Amino acid sequence: MKIVRDQERSLTIISGVLFAASAWWTVKKHREGKERRLRNGRSLRISKRATESNISTRCQQRALSPAIPYLESFLLGLQYPYDPDHPDGYIPLCVAENKLATDLLAKKLMQPQTASTTFSDDSVYAYNSFLGLPVARQAAAYFFAKRFLYPHLPSLSIEKALAAISPDSIGIASGAAGILNSLFFLLGDGGDAALIPRPYYSAFDSDMSLVAEITPFGFSLARPTQGPTESELDMAYLEARSQGLNPRFLLLTNPNNPLATIYRPEVIRDAIIWARKRKMHTIVDEIYALSAPQDTFQSVLRIMDGQLGDDVHMVWSLSKDFGASGLRVGFVLSGNKDYINGLSNLNIFGGVSNPMQVIVAELMTDDKFVDYYLEESSARLRNNYQICVQKLEEMVLPFVPAQAGIFVYVDFSAILPEKTKEWEAKLCQLFIDHARVILTPGDSMREQMPGMFRICYAWVPPEVLRVGMERLSRIVAKIRRLDWGDLNENTLSGIL
Amino acid sequence: MKIVRDQERSLTIISGVLFAASAWWTVKKHREGKERRLRNGRSLRISKRATESNISTRCQQRALSPAIPYLESFLLGLQYPYDPDHPDGYIPLCVAENKLATDLLAKKLMQPQTASTTFSDDSVYAYNSFLGLPVARQAAAYFFAKRFLYPHLPSLSIEKALAAISPDSIGIASGAAGILNSLFFLLGDGGDAALIPRPYYSAFDSDMSLVAEITPFGFSLARPTQGPTESELDMAYLEARSQGLNPRFLLLTNPNNPLATIYRPEVIRDAIIWARKRKMHTIVDEIYALSAPQDTFQSVLRIMDGQLGDDVHMVWSLSKDFGASGLRVGFVLSGNKDYINGLSNLNIFGGVSNPMQVIVAELMTDDKFVDYYLEESSARLRNNYQICVQKLEEMVLPFVPAQAGIFVYVDFSAILPEKTKEWEAKLCQLFIDHARVILTPGDSMREQMPGMFRICYAWVPPEVLRVGMERLSRIVAKIRRLDWGDLNENTLSGIL
Repeated sequence: MKIVRDQERSLTIISGVLFAASAWWTVKKHREGKERRLRNGRSLRISKRATESNISTRCQQRALSPAIPYLESFLLGLQYPYDPDHPDGYIPLCVAENKLATDLLAKKLMQPQTASTTFSDDSVYAYNSFLGLPVARQAAAYFFAKRFLYPHLPSLSIEKALAAISPDSIGIASGAAGILNSLFFLLGDGGDAALIPRPYYSAFDSDMSLVAEITPFGFSLARPTQGPTESELDMAYLEARSQGLNPRFLLLTNPNNPLATIYRPEVIRDAIIWARKRKMHTIVDEIYALSAPQDTFQSVLRIMDGQLGDDVHMVWSLSKDFGASGLRVGFVLSGNKDYINGLSNLNIFGGVSNPMQVIVAELMTDDKFVDYYLEESSARLRNNYQICVQKLEEMVLPFVPAQAGIFVYVDFSAILPEKTKEWEAKLCQLFIDHARVILTPGDSMREQMPGMFRICYAWVPPEVLRVGMERLSRIVAKIRRLDWGDLNENTLSGIL
Repeated sequence: MKIVRDQERSLTIISGVLFAASAWWTVKKHREGKERRLRNGRSLRISKRATESNISTRCQQRALSPAIPYLESFLLGLQYPYDPDHPDGYIPLCVAENKLATDLLAKKLMQPQTASTTFSDDSVYAYNSFLGLPVARQAAAYFFAKRFLYPHLPSLSIEKALAAISPDSIGIASGAAGILNSLFFLLGDGGDAALIPRPYYSAFDSDMSLVAEITPFGFSLARPTQGPTESELDMAYLEARSQGLNPRFLLLTNPNNPLATIYRPEVIRDAIIWARKRKMHTIVDEIYALSAPQDTFQSVLRIMDGQLGDDVHMVWSLSKDFGASGLRVGFVLSGNKDYINGLSNLNIFGGVSNPMQVIVAELMTDDKFVDYYLEESSARLRNNYQICVQKLEEMVLPFVPAQAGIFVYVDFSAILPEKTKEWEAKLCQLFIDHARVILTPGDSMREQMPGMFRICYAWVPPEVLRVGMERLSRIVAKIRRLDWGDLNENTLSGIL
């Protein structure tokens, strides 16, 4: 499979299964070999029934369900995806991956020097610090200084960067999930809770609870796009306490997923001050930082002038901004030396391959490429975003105007017969069954208001996105015209 | 830093820090830049004092100490290692890494096609099953069939391999440590215990307790090289029960570390039958499998005729047999579907970079290269082993004749004034201070008999090993000649 610039072909070779299922196949292979399909398919059917004697209670209770509730729909979509030869195929718009600029990254990494440089360095073969290779931690320090702390400086020397951000404050682990797990495990004890403004990323629950046994405590905001106010934080805190929980963390995602909005710097600062007073940790997940226009987004690093203290922790990874979740490279920046020390021991279970670290270090310090990539990727994101929202406007569906990220948050509640989660689930299923478009339902993101959906517009090329949006438009029109009791195979035909 | 065939130069570019410390430097760089040394040195001094409020109790209790007790000595050795220009430098022989054939692996992986093949495959950029890429799991299935299940067959078709070992039964995680953590976490509950014949690999304690909270229960054998008998297992079980523990695991390492011996197939089979009766899991760590002569070693896979059931789990990684601990690629083979399913969710915190998986898949299915590598690596291991044991024989020190692995287990007890752990520690320190040779003391491997040491003879090239063994020979001679009260800077001079 070669990456080709042509985005249409890129769909025909869509591959990958999100989060956890044990089966996977490329479309091509899937269609080529029945035997192989059967073999892979079998693994999808691994029984979820825990045998009493042979796994642990915690495995039974916490590890047998996928971190992402909509995984099954997504897998279904991968089995028969849309392409020009399969115009009735599924179009998954539920996964927050940016596949629009993969070709740029691939073109860079495919160069022969990637292999010759990486694998001639004999340090890649040996044990090393489980916080990451020095070269990678230094590269990350430089990158965070240049892109997060001083984004407005036209140039930045490595000396100034390392003076501002110490490589000693950086840890590298298997994805942002690995980093989050370490923060929750090393900074909180089982039974502690994390306050999280709703709606939020589905897998946070699993990230904090599967191993670390931290209880997620979502709370609603009057104005979700503006972030939490002090009184909302107070209220959430008291409510959690009243339920016998011990709030130990405040978890913020900025830019926000799924809202695609940016919190003002004061909101972040005030939230940190609030948490600090209560001896709580603030984790700021900035995984969409560079998919945001830099004149509105401010990293917590800049907000705190590079001084995170021992209770503020920034999380970032290559997954979103570089469309490279498969590389499994996550970073933490923390001033908590005990945490960093703990991570150096814990991370024996989740360290990143040294060769990948060398490759990533080179990438993160290649300013010219990073500039070019981010600019081109942003342009492609904007283009897909426009396709998406133009159609939403035609459909007269309210949505949250996106300031950042790779998705848009849409309000379908007007077409629900009743504003309940059950009807939301039915609508979600109608989209899947009759439009063969898979969206992320609000419920999976702990959204309280029924009928909200996240559309990830960067998972497919523009021409496929157009098809998907057109289908959504058609099905919404039909739903509006018909009684829900009349929605069936026949009345909903002709959408594909 | 280029890998060079010349093993002497390979020492001058020794790099890497084992397990956990947050500092690292290459010798060259260390000597080149005072500033850099200071910066790195600082991270070594990260305080181990946990601040009361800002980390978790479990971090304080379980994550602040390195998994390997002899880490500090090793780090010391790395700061000033031996090379011809620094003839008084340290010679670390305490780390079970095989650095003797790194050049072969490097030469293969440095090829331009490594980059072009790996990074042109667009599936490497996307989310995938956290059990591993299908291509990697299939490659592993083939590899285990060919090297572990059917090592005597001259050739093996991929069909036969996959019929014997299903890729669905394989999981790939960050190193054998990541795999072990997952087994203990998903198959046992906190408070359960694992029975392990002593002596054993230092970091097992951390692997099972840091996250999974499994209690290691080491037990002694009448004949350690022969493995546990049924009555010894019974006794260990009862003793553990009498201490209020719930034995849930039997952990065997075959070939054994640190003994470098191989258990007979009957021993493994009987132990499994024994454990099965008690509804216990048997984990067989075969991480040194391919550094063993294939006519004596039998994998548990072969012993069980490929049918591990849901209570036997084999662990292997690239770290030892391919001298590639820095790649962080570990494998598990298990017939327990719930465990595999649980791993697919847990491993979101420890999945291996997709590109590394593609690279490793190619490596594991390149029969010609693997044959050549293993043959050449074995020859170099034998050569170093001979250098080591010839000297030990000259020194009239008993040792366990090695059947496998990359180390030899030596009895220095004859030169201890008293057979206590305190004197062992003193002897260990004498070796470090006056011979500048760092060995793995038996105590760190839960050895009961004082005076046992593991010598890892594959960490340095033969000419450096000769120097190290010569120094050991000199210091042992002096210790034998002198009273321990007379051992000091002066009497122990002239060893370097």
